[in-house]
Amino acid sequence: MTPEEFREYGKQVVDWIADYLAGIEDYPVRSRVRPGEVRAALPAHPPEHGEPFESVLDDLDSVVLPGITHWQHPSFFAYFPANASGPAILGDLLSAGLGVQGMVWATSPACTELETVVVDWLAELLDLPAHFRTDTAGGGVIQDSASSASLVAVLAAIQRAGGRAGDGRRYSIYVSSQTHSSLEKAARIAGIGAEYVRAVDVDPETLAMDPVHLDTLIAEDVAEGVTPALVCATIGTTSTTAIDPVARIGQVCRARGIWLHVDAAYAGVSAVCPELRWINDGVAAFADSYVTNPHKWLLTNFDCSVLWLADRAPLIEALSILPEYLRNAASASGEVIDYRDWQIPLGRRFRALKLWSVIRWYGAEGLRAHVRNGIELADEFAALVKAHPGFRLLEHHPFSLVCFRPVWPGKSTADANAATTELLERLNDSGQLYLSHTKVGDDVLLRLAVGAPMTQRRHIQAAWDRIRTEYERSQ
Amino acid sequence: MTPEEFREYGKQVVDWIADYLAGIEDYPVRSRVRPGEVRAALPAHPPEHGEPFESVLDDLDSVVLPGITHWQHPSFFAYFPANASGPAILGDLLSAGLGVQGMVWATSPACTELETVVVDWLAELLDLPAHFRTDTAGGGVIQDSASSASLVAVLAAIQRAGGRAGDGRRYSIYVSSQTHSSLEKAARIAGIGAEYVRAVDVDPETLAMDPVHLDTLIAEDVAEGVTPALVCATIGTTSTTAIDPVARIGQVCRARGIWLHVDAAYAGVSAVCPELRWINDGVAAFADSYVTNPHKWLLTNFDCSVLWLADRAPLIEALSILPEYLRNAASASGEVIDYRDWQIPLGRRFRALKLWSVIRWYGAEGLRAHVRNGIELADEFAALVKAHPGFRLLEHHPFSLVCFRPVWPGKSTADANAATTELLERLNDSGQLYLSHTKVGDDVLLRLAVGAPMTQRRHIQAAWDRIRTEYERSQ
Repeated sequence: MTPEEFREYGKQVVDWIADYLAGIEDYPVRSRVRPGEVRAALPAHPPEHGEPFESVLDDLDSVVLPGITHWQHPSFFAYFPANASGPAILGDLLSAGLGVQGMVWATSPACTELETVVVDWLAELLDLPAHFRTDTAGGGVIQDSASSASLVAVLAAIQRAGGRAGDGRRYSIYVSSQTHSSLEKAARIAGIGAEYVRAVDVDPETLAMDPVHLDTLIAEDVAEGVTPALVCATIGTTSTTAIDPVARIGQVCRARGIWLHVDAAYAGVSAVCPELRWINDGVAAFADSYVTNPHKWLLTNFDCSVLWLADRAPLIEALSILPEYLRNAASASGEVIDYRDWQIPLGRRFRALKLWSVIRWYGAEGLRAHVRNGIELADEFAALVKAHPGFRLLEHHPFSLVCFRPVWPGKSTADANAATTELLERLNDSGQLYLSHTKVGDDVLLRLAVGAPMTQRRHIQAAWDRIRTEYERSQ
Repeated sequence: MTPEEFREYGKQVVDWIADYLAGIEDYPVRSRVRPGEVRAALPAHPPEHGEPFESVLDDLDSVVLPGITHWQHPSFFAYFPANASGPAILGDLLSAGLGVQGMVWATSPACTELETVVVDWLAELLDLPAHFRTDTAGGGVIQDSASSASLVAVLAAIQRAGGRAGDGRRYSIYVSSQTHSSLEKAARIAGIGAEYVRAVDVDPETLAMDPVHLDTLIAEDVAEGVTPALVCATIGTTSTTAIDPVARIGQVCRARGIWLHVDAAYAGVSAVCPELRWINDGVAAFADSYVTNPHKWLLTNFDCSVLWLADRAPLIEALSILPEYLRNAASASGEVIDYRDWQIPLGRRFRALKLWSVIRWYGAEGLRAHVRNGIELADEFAALVKAHPGFRLLEHHPFSLVCFRPVWPGKSTADANAATTELLERLNDSGQLYLSHTKVGDDVLLRLAVGAPMTQRRHIQAAWDRIRTEYERSQ
């Protein structure tokens, strides 16, 4: 494709996306295709001869779109949001157009240095501690996801604990029942083994990790010759946005010399708002690593997860390997950062461009407005739920997620859960909104996560009307 | 940013990229900035107020571009190519615009099913064995990089060997001195430990792995109670595009029940050409996993690495964890694929769109023409080197990489290497071309990798003229 053809088709694609976003409310939020339907509509064999790009766009409309669950739909309330925004899409487009691979500084210095600047900017926007900035022993890096960030935190923690995964020693990590499943996956991958992932008790009300039980578990492991490597505290759990007591957990970690990793994948970005910075209490004093995902709630397309470290040395020691063909004067000088040593893969896209575009387009005030809008709408929805006698609200909802359940008088817990799940499916089948679910104790709860860039009050009101109506119809 | 603003700025960005690509030869191939220069030119603090998108584009020109090493420049001959192409850029743009997250089938069925279709298409285009297709026990998946693909292959291999990383058993993997460093990194990450990465001897001429020595090393490990988990054979090594004897290695693996992983990251895509399919001899009979990167030499923007498995079950067993909030009817039915269980991260971009766009725009014949063009130009360059008495050519160059070294009469090996390295720096400093280097035995060799989409005969001729002239001037 020549640059002139790219110019022509590129504008068609931009128009296609602008039209898609402008008309997104016309689509059912959750795709209605059945398993295999998209695949069956596509040719079984690749084309021998090239096709005009118009054919791709035609099939996009006729085959792909029906199979899309519209994450950018203003009535997408499932999971957590995965914000896309205009400046982020354009930043990603610029990255694709430049087509550079920033595995080391020398392979495109701007790819590395712009990343350093934007992760430092983001640390400042979130008021994270100064020792997370790159001019210290610490620093930040963009990863594809919090899963990968947590995995490399585990590897760095093992390194600091004096070993390497696979050195014959037994390492343990500490999570709660509410910790993201990626920590268990990381432990499996890192060779710690799922059986050395200790589940710390949570407070039954707040679902926050119990620091006293944490200390007990650690003492037991130490007594048995196991080396405690890492504790993961979560700020805003996936299930219900519970907040672990970071400072108290940090004191346990400090006393015992254990790495404290803070998973704030979803909620961390909300600290752009000064009134929410209390969520990071204890981070400055105790956290060895901290991850939050601008690709969830901060208007930056997936993938863009930022990991900061108080000390980058153990991470680099754990992951650095220098083959001959990557040797270069800049790396040897020690004056530059080679982010390949901060992550699992060798290759790197120029992801800093999209975060840079987002921060510049919105500015700090625009980012704060976006987060506040999500929280306000969630609060309004929670008030509607609370005022209705047929629903029980999970009172703790500091961010933009609201968890609640319908009441089914006379039904056993199992039957009530089945009724809740049926209600959920009917709601999602309607195409008018998309919710997800979780389980707290024995109860299935519905999760309504606000935060998509286009969500307005009318979408929240419509969601509530639909939920209430479906519920009342089921009685 | 509203859809209408996106429409406007999007077209500006498309024009910017078209202009960039049309004028790319005006830039020095390798960036000339010094460490810290880009960073110093950017504000130390994020903006409080949003800025117009024009400011981003202005800084892109004035600050970012000088720090770019231009991977798409037709005279970029370093490393391996990282092809970008119009249809790939647009496929990625569509992915960003849709903004879906395909962690499980249900979160956007088309994201999963289009991926299944395109990895099956690619297997057909490369004539890979039928048991790599998704309708069998095997299947393919798009990963970010061959590093990650090799890591998950190691995890699957340990799983099949009857264990899990961290189960207290000792596992070993087998590579050669020419194997990509990502295998050692994978072993570290997976808790095997670098000391259980066995280096099999290579033939000093062909640099191919010695299957007899492989068998000897395996026997030694078995005798010591170590469990051999995986052998990595490479088709087209990073250093010199050496090819390991896959069939003979495979026979050793088969006899001993060891997982055979084939790393064809760069060269594998060349099998779109029937005349190059001999490179995969032994893959159909013996390979348990196989990785190649369309993001290197097949016109598809980084990141797009495709991993196929002959049996996907051990991979899924190694990586699957099902938290409550991801439970859904489609997954429970077993009728769908959830690619999250085939990779390290949970989240997934819609990367299939770019590979789909590329295959459709170019067709099989266009992809073959691209690969053949790279090989022809490399052959022409090699002929020029060979005809010059001042250079020694590495005769083995089946793909688009040519390795060679200048002769420095009267100089010791160390001094000759220093002179070669100096020559390389002068060439790269010229901005007219960008080469990389490697070491074979005691000698530093220059690497000239063809394969960028815009490279033509005149760029090869100009590179040779510059290399020859600089060399002759140094005598």
